[in-house]
Amino acid sequence: MSTNKTMKGGEFLIRPLLPEELFIPEEFSEEQKMIGQTCIDFIKTEIQPRLEEMDGAKDGSVMVDMMDKAGNLGLLGTSVPEEYGGFGMDFNTSMLVAEACGSGHSFAVALSAHTGIGTLPILYYGTEDQKQRYLPKLASGEWKAAYCLTEPDSGSDANAAKSKAVLSKEGKHYLITGQKMWITNGGFADVFIVFAKIADDKNLTAFIVEKSFGGITMNEEERKMGIKGSSTRQIFFNDCPVPVENLLFKREGGFKIAVNILNIGRIKLAAAVIGAGKRVIDQAVQYANDRKQFGQSLHQFGAIKFKIAEMIVKNYACESACYRVGQNIDDTISELKAAGMNDSEAKLKGVEQFAIECALLKVHGSETLDYSVDEGVQIYGGMGFSAEAPMDRAYRDSRINRIFEGTNEINRLLAVGTVIKRAMKGELDIMTAAMAVGKEILGVPDFSSSVPEGIFGKEYKVIANLKKALLMSAGGALQKYTTEIEQEQEILMSLADMMIEIYVAESVLVRVDKLILQSGEAANEIAKECALVYLHEAVDKIHHHGKEVITGFATGDELNVMLMGLKRFTKIDPKNLKEARRKIAEAAILKMGYIF
Amino acid sequence: MSTNKTMKGGEFLIRPLLPEELFIPEEFSEEQKMIGQTCIDFIKTEIQPRLEEMDGAKDGSVMVDMMDKAGNLGLLGTSVPEEYGGFGMDFNTSMLVAEACGSGHSFAVALSAHTGIGTLPILYYGTEDQKQRYLPKLASGEWKAAYCLTEPDSGSDANAAKSKAVLSKEGKHYLITGQKMWITNGGFADVFIVFAKIADDKNLTAFIVEKSFGGITMNEEERKMGIKGSSTRQIFFNDCPVPVENLLFKREGGFKIAVNILNIGRIKLAAAVIGAGKRVIDQAVQYANDRKQFGQSLHQFGAIKFKIAEMIVKNYACESACYRVGQNIDDTISELKAAGMNDSEAKLKGVEQFAIECALLKVHGSETLDYSVDEGVQIYGGMGFSAEAPMDRAYRDSRINRIFEGTNEINRLLAVGTVIKRAMKGELDIMTAAMAVGKEILGVPDFSSSVPEGIFGKEYKVIANLKKALLMSAGGALQKYTTEIEQEQEILMSLADMMIEIYVAESVLVRVDKLILQSGEAANEIAKECALVYLHEAVDKIHHHGKEVITGFATGDELNVMLMGLKRFTKIDPKNLKEARRKIAEAAILKMGYIF
Ligand SMILES: Cc1cc2nc3c(=O)[nH]c(=O)nc-3n(C[C@H](O)[C@H](O)[C@H](O)COP(=O)(O)OP(=O)(O)OC[C@H]3O[C@@H](n4cnc5c(N)ncnc54)[C@H](O)[C@@H]3O)c2cc1C
Ligand SMILES: Cc1cc2nc3c(=O)[nH]c(=O)nc-3n(C[C@H](O)[C@H](O)[C@H](O)COP(=O)(O)OP(=O)(O)OC[C@H]3O[C@@H](n4cnc5c(N)ncnc54)[C@H](O)[C@@H]3O)c2cc1C
Repeated sequence: MSTNKTMKGGEFLIRPLLPEELFIPEEFSEEQKMIGQTCIDFIKTEIQPRLEEMDGAKDGSVMVDMMDKAGNLGLLGTSVPEEYGGFGMDFNTSMLVAEACGSGHSFAVALSAHTGIGTLPILYYGTEDQKQRYLPKLASGEWKAAYCLTEPDSGSDANAAKSKAVLSKEGKHYLITGQKMWITNGGFADVFIVFAKIADDKNLTAFIVEKSFGGITMNEEERKMGIKGSSTRQIFFNDCPVPVENLLFKREGGFKIAVNILNIGRIKLAAAVIGAGKRVIDQAVQYANDRKQFGQSLHQFGAIKFKIAEMIVKNYACESACYRVGQNIDDTISELKAAGMNDSEAKLKGVEQFAIECALLKVHGSETLDYSVDEGVQIYGGMGFSAEAPMDRAYRDSRINRIFEGTNEINRLLAVGTVIKRAMKGELDIMTAAMAVGKEILGVPDFSSSVPEGIFGKEYKVIANLKKALLMSAGGALQKYTTEIEQEQEILMSLADMMIEIYVAESVLVRVDKLILQSGEAANEIAKECALVYLHEAVDKIHHHGKEVITGFATGDELNVMLMGLKRFTKIDPKNLKEARRKIAEAAILKMGYIF
Repeated sequence: MSTNKTMKGGEFLIRPLLPEELFIPEEFSEEQKMIGQTCIDFIKTEIQPRLEEMDGAKDGSVMVDMMDKAGNLGLLGTSVPEEYGGFGMDFNTSMLVAEACGSGHSFAVALSAHTGIGTLPILYYGTEDQKQRYLPKLASGEWKAAYCLTEPDSGSDANAAKSKAVLSKEGKHYLITGQKMWITNGGFADVFIVFAKIADDKNLTAFIVEKSFGGITMNEEERKMGIKGSSTRQIFFNDCPVPVENLLFKREGGFKIAVNILNIGRIKLAAAVIGAGKRVIDQAVQYANDRKQFGQSLHQFGAIKFKIAEMIVKNYACESACYRVGQNIDDTISELKAAGMNDSEAKLKGVEQFAIECALLKVHGSETLDYSVDEGVQIYGGMGFSAEAPMDRAYRDSRINRIFEGTNEINRLLAVGTVIKRAMKGELDIMTAAMAVGKEILGVPDFSSSVPEGIFGKEYKVIANLKKALLMSAGGALQKYTTEIEQEQEILMSLADMMIEIYVAESVLVRVDKLILQSGEAANEIAKECALVYLHEAVDKIHHHGKEVITGFATGDELNVMLMGLKRFTKIDPKNLKEARRKIAEAAILKMGYIF
């Protein structure tokens, strides 16, 4: 079953992950860990003591100061190649950096807008001249970047943007006119990646616009629920003259840029929220220790242990999945480069290959953090509602993650849509697998079938079955609706949730298997409990969503057969999760914070 | 099966509710509906246009102005008897008022603190002299009230309060010293209900304290996540002299007051969040109509229909349960008065009887509103995160409801704890019922058993089975842990969730049955879909929690037998919920808001 090829995007649906294939965060090199630690230290010393100041600032000066400090430290150039003044880190190291900075609240958002959607379009799509002109300044932080895609009438439907670019008479400039909205870093950015349509084009074109070009005005700062320290502006372009050589990539190539850059943004967001989650867990555990009621520390109450354990389980599982994607992307990039592709193109293709996983993890990560901050507030009780304690900000700041970088609805639809598209194109052979499952459910259940070896033999079989549950449900729905499946969003949303749970459960299970292979069961007892709790809960969710899918389209005999199949494929031996969660929570309390 | 006696508190666990027993909100009289409408109009014209002003106010002046207006309209005296200047409404009408004012954000909180925890202790526990002196002024709004129970070290553990009351030398005053925290209306209240311990008492005593007594200082307004317009203060009492005749009820009677008044607060909170929820639904449906992406109104997307339907289903179900409790309380009060009990005592006993249901609905209501505001934010997309649109405030304001009036953890524990206590005392015969279920699971499943008649015959059987699932799980856990069950909070929490789902599912189902009996199926098609969607989801949740309970204590054969029993008791014919939700959402879109 083992192959030397990196698993392709979406392939997790039809083939098992092996421990030797999975990169686990424990395998980061000393150097990488040091880079991560540098970032964590920076956030601790430079950002966290200034959160209140940052959020209360009337203009962007505090944020600019922080960005400058980050620039001095080299934090703005992690993904930029050395020849343009950056560090040229591989993808997974940049994930580690994103995670390490993730607990920086508004700063983390500004940082990721600058280094991600602000810088990467030039890095990946720019001409050599464009790269020379902009990347060194962006990598050092001398210039700050923003990304102008969204408009009042064009949010999720990004390609519907109305901004226009008209070639000037003399042919040397495009004159850009339009209204952009929700522009992060807008208040202080020097460079804007702006999307507009040339003449009557159907598709967007991207431009590199300097503030100094003129014709740019903006509204006051938006008043927001959270990330109040992050500058968010409406920006108006009024015949803003952009030299023709600042057109990025190619005419009508803007939407492609937007989509590809967002893929990166999504998986980086997942990394960032893991970092934010770890901090929330640290704080919640600490508070549950310090606060006493009824003569006990809060963490002595089972209800609180439950919350602590669940926060840890979800975060740990999400992390396992994130770095799996990150490494897959790196490996694919290497393979493509080895096959002769140039650097930028290889990076783009590498990420695009995992568009499905990026979308799934954006959803899982943002929902995991929202779970953690919500329980964080609850653990703090009345203090959770107070602006004097950290959970208020954490709760408000977290909420944006389910909205930007594509709403979670859009990402769910996208993930499933991409699987279907690849299946249609023959790039991903879901059909054969689905047909085999279709046959299997009409046959006699194979109770006798052997259990794979190893400590997680039974669990691997469960994962394999969960994939069958998904293939069966998705296959049935597709057969019924064919191309009309787009109209059945409720079904697509449930299929996306099934995919998420499968991907994450498999990732955490294999991570722990690998850890146990390396250092034995005793040393990894808590990690094992985390993997098993996650798996058990995933089975329940997959059963739930599978039922939603199946009852959403099937009737009569088909309905019965498929529900029976679902039951068969979501069987798992019962486990005492209460005891498992207690072990996890108690380990966290001993460590006075996140365990891993 | 029918009896003329009002169902007792907790009795829903062991006997079915009949349509003729259930009060449904459709049965409110014209007069009651008019009262509700008056409140809704008041909120619409006087409060909602001033939300921004209210939340931004530096002192309490805006809120005081609003309270005065509410006082002029009679809104502050709804529960106060006419002889003390109020309207003396029955309990369920006061629930209707709470619901109608529920969408008033911070104002709703100030109102309920004043009329509830601020006024009711005097109404229910005061001497005739105390009532004469305070109630008329509180009912008119001339004086505003606050309730001082919580202290820095005493939140959930209210009886641990350290504030002291020392009898003065001359014996005419108690000198109160202590620090109170999180006091709603604290900034402008004229009268405080203060809890403190006299000498070395183990239990609290309550006092009526006027601001003018002196010795009272306070901190600045708390900075909070939400309900920013509601005054919340730390209050310091420094030898504050309280005349002995202002001791409320009796020495060491304070905790009892606190507990009983909180029961009322809880069920009123559930009513209030229903009102808030209806407004959120109205706004979300409106926005989903106005906002277009991809050439369509948002509500044309299945993913958005799902959200709209779920918000409605949960809210409608919660409402059905709330007014059931309200009427039960009214009926019990009448019965007690008919048996010779005095008014105040009858009211207290009436509410106390339903302490279980009050706690369960506080949890369900607050979690329903949190669900709705969360999906409300999501439907608004980026605008959901903006302070210019209503969802930001709705999201932040909702979060407090799971924290105050007893956290949702405390209320879950309380509900289950009270059931167990009553069972032990022989007041609630859970044991016989649990034993019967215990026998049943060892026997052959009764597949043949007849289905009750009526349109919901099958569904009533499902409800009966869900109760068996609970009795089985709870009975097993109790047998295993006996009095040590208190240490198994995770199990208690799951049992509480099962109780909530059973109570609410039964209430909404019977409500719709009654409606159909009255006006036929066609006129109630959407209501029917709501009840069925709720029921199906409840079955899933009960199965989930049942499994948590059972695997949390059982092993070996017992585990297997109980899991089989759970499966049997959570069987329900499959239903296409996708289609049902679409019908519900489409009805809401037609009506451009909440349907019922
Ligand atoms: C604080 C903040 C910072 C931001 N920073 C930037 C930035 O730097 N640059 C930039 O260009 N943009 C930025 N954005 C914009 C952000 O990307 C958009 O808000 C997001 O894409 C959603 O678009 P929208 O707000 O128009 O919501 P809408 O697209 O109107 O969506 C509203 C709701 O409808 C749902 N929906 C929409 N279409 C569909 C569909 N086809 N099927 C099912 N459901 C659908 C959505 O999921 C959502 O629930 C930012 C936004 C915020 C709030
Ligand atoms: C805006 C606001 C307004 C308020 N208004 C008033 C008011 O007018 N008057 C007043 O007296 N009080 C008021 N309160 C106080 C409120 O009632 C308390 O915040 C609430 O009772 C919780 O207490 P706590 O904050 O001390 O949390 P804690 O009791 O410290 O609880 C922290 C966490 O531990 C959990 N926990 C505590 N004990 C247990 C246990 N035994 N088992 C399991 N879990 C447990 C809680 O559920 C919670 O999750 C207000 C609070 C706020 C925030």
